[in-house]
Amino acid sequence: MIFKEELKKKAVLVGEALDRFLPKPDTYPPLIHQAMRYSVMGGGKRLRPALVLAAAETVGGSAADVLPAACAIELIHVYSLVHDDLPAMDNDDYRRGKLTSHKVYGEAMALLVGDALLTLAFKLLSECRGASPDAVVRVINEVAAGAGTLGLIGGQVVDTFSAGEAIEESTLEYIHRHKTGAMYRVSLRTGAILAGASDEELACLTEYAEHMGLAFQIKDDILDIEGDEKKLGKPVGSDVRNKKATYPALFGLDQSKEKARLAAGKATAALSKFGREADFLRALVKFVIERDF
Amino acid sequence: MIFKEELKKKAVLVGEALDRFLPKPDTYPPLIHQAMRYSVMGGGKRLRPALVLAAAETVGGSAADVLPAACAIELIHVYSLVHDDLPAMDNDDYRRGKLTSHKVYGEAMALLVGDALLTLAFKLLSECRGASPDAVVRVINEVAAGAGTLGLIGGQVVDTFSAGEAIEESTLEYIHRHKTGAMYRVSLRTGAILAGASDEELACLTEYAEHMGLAFQIKDDILDIEGDEKKLGKPVGSDVRNKKATYPALFGLDQSKEKARLAAGKATAALSKFGREADFLRALVKFVIERDF
Repeated sequence: MIFKEELKKKAVLVGEALDRFLPKPDTYPPLIHQAMRYSVMGGGKRLRPALVLAAAETVGGSAADVLPAACAIELIHVYSLVHDDLPAMDNDDYRRGKLTSHKVYGEAMALLVGDALLTLAFKLLSECRGASPDAVVRVINEVAAGAGTLGLIGGQVVDTFSAGEAIEESTLEYIHRHKTGAMYRVSLRTGAILAGASDEELACLTEYAEHMGLAFQIKDDILDIEGDEKKLGKPVGSDVRNKKATYPALFGLDQSKEKARLAAGKATAALSKFGREADFLRALVKFVIERDF
Repeated sequence: MIFKEELKKKAVLVGEALDRFLPKPDTYPPLIHQAMRYSVMGGGKRLRPALVLAAAETVGGSAADVLPAACAIELIHVYSLVHDDLPAMDNDDYRRGKLTSHKVYGEAMALLVGDALLTLAFKLLSECRGASPDAVVRVINEVAAGAGTLGLIGGQVVDTFSAGEAIEESTLEYIHRHKTGAMYRVSLRTGAILAGASDEELACLTEYAEHMGLAFQIKDDILDIEGDEKKLGKPVGSDVRNKKATYPALFGLDQSKEKARLAAGKATAALSKFGREADFLRALVKFVIERDF
């Protein structure tokens, strides 16, 4: 499998679906619908929705059936970025080489855009018609839990309010497991549950998600030091400037790379029960630690 | 029926349920859980959740079964207030006589508190175990639609971005129908759908909601001019100061009062198919236009 091509294919599928699911830009009130599209259609790796599709396919389901859920999880990711970029939070002017939402539409609109994307995400989840209502309710419960204060938002809170402080390994791990890890976990579980995974399949994919998410985050920290600004589409060194807790800051670069490799190995091992249908998830692990963007 | 006592009873029921459903104040990370409680447990009329309970009871269901949904709708109301109060929006220091969230916890936390309340709302909706999964999925879909850019947020956008401009009746009506009306409608429909209402019952309650919501909003506009600051728990005259579009600004006080009475009459008429079980909703209409807070 040529992983980058397959990821690209999934990203295109998700991008087309997002275009269908987002209100048209001239829907009243047009300004917010244009602003939502500005942030959502601005690219990105579409990694989380790709994980939803891949999880469904790995357990024998169809990507098409879980597309609304995949888009919902991408909308939650984008909402969290739009709010995170606001002046009250990280105060970032650029994201993926483009001006951030509040720089283009103002703070009030960026706030409302984030709210609207989060709300639309749950609307889309309730429209997964391919799955049983029981599975849909379960997925909504897991997504809300993963995006909430015991997941994504919890990680955001600890990250925001511990910036500049000396941080212990346990706090750093908490931030990573929650700020990014929770939604990777939810992405894989969402695709699997909607596609009718068995308990054992679900457990394997959950374990995969945890190790893969950790590898991804450590690599992200490493790229903020070693990466190429042009390839990343964002300035490097921002973690150091903002005194953010990172793996390299706590363990140094070499040990961080070793930790990423270790987590990647465990992620791959968690897939041992699956055959070729899990090849995308296997290739993803390799991509995660070798990527330069 | 002594309406105020019954409303108070429902508010107490909802308050106790919210206390159970919100994460405990010492749950990690504690600061956001304390901040969530500060905004949610700060009182308010609990009108929306009372409507959810009353709608369920009106169609023969039980209030206890729809409590999680009632609390979810209150959380969405509170999230919208917390974000609306932020400096980038209305920049209000006080709400119900108490400092607003960002004045106590800072802007970053108030932003995250709003996000967290909205997210928790959908988690609670997915935990309505008394109803069928089909009804739960339908309710989540309607709540997300009502809270989104074609409902609550749409009204917020038009309200925010038309402040200071000369406004036509159609725009004013749009703002009211969406910023407040949509969630009244959703409140009644949520209680009714979860309790297994017939299509006819649902249609009557929906019509009731639309007229009652309009009466409520016109009365709100009137109270901002004629009301007593102490009873309202907020300064009056803010609409005039902020050059907000209101019914009195467009039609004058007398005609606004007539419009409120007319809407109230239509709301009561929509209940004609129901017997004594709709007495709370009937009394509510009277309360809505006679209230002084």
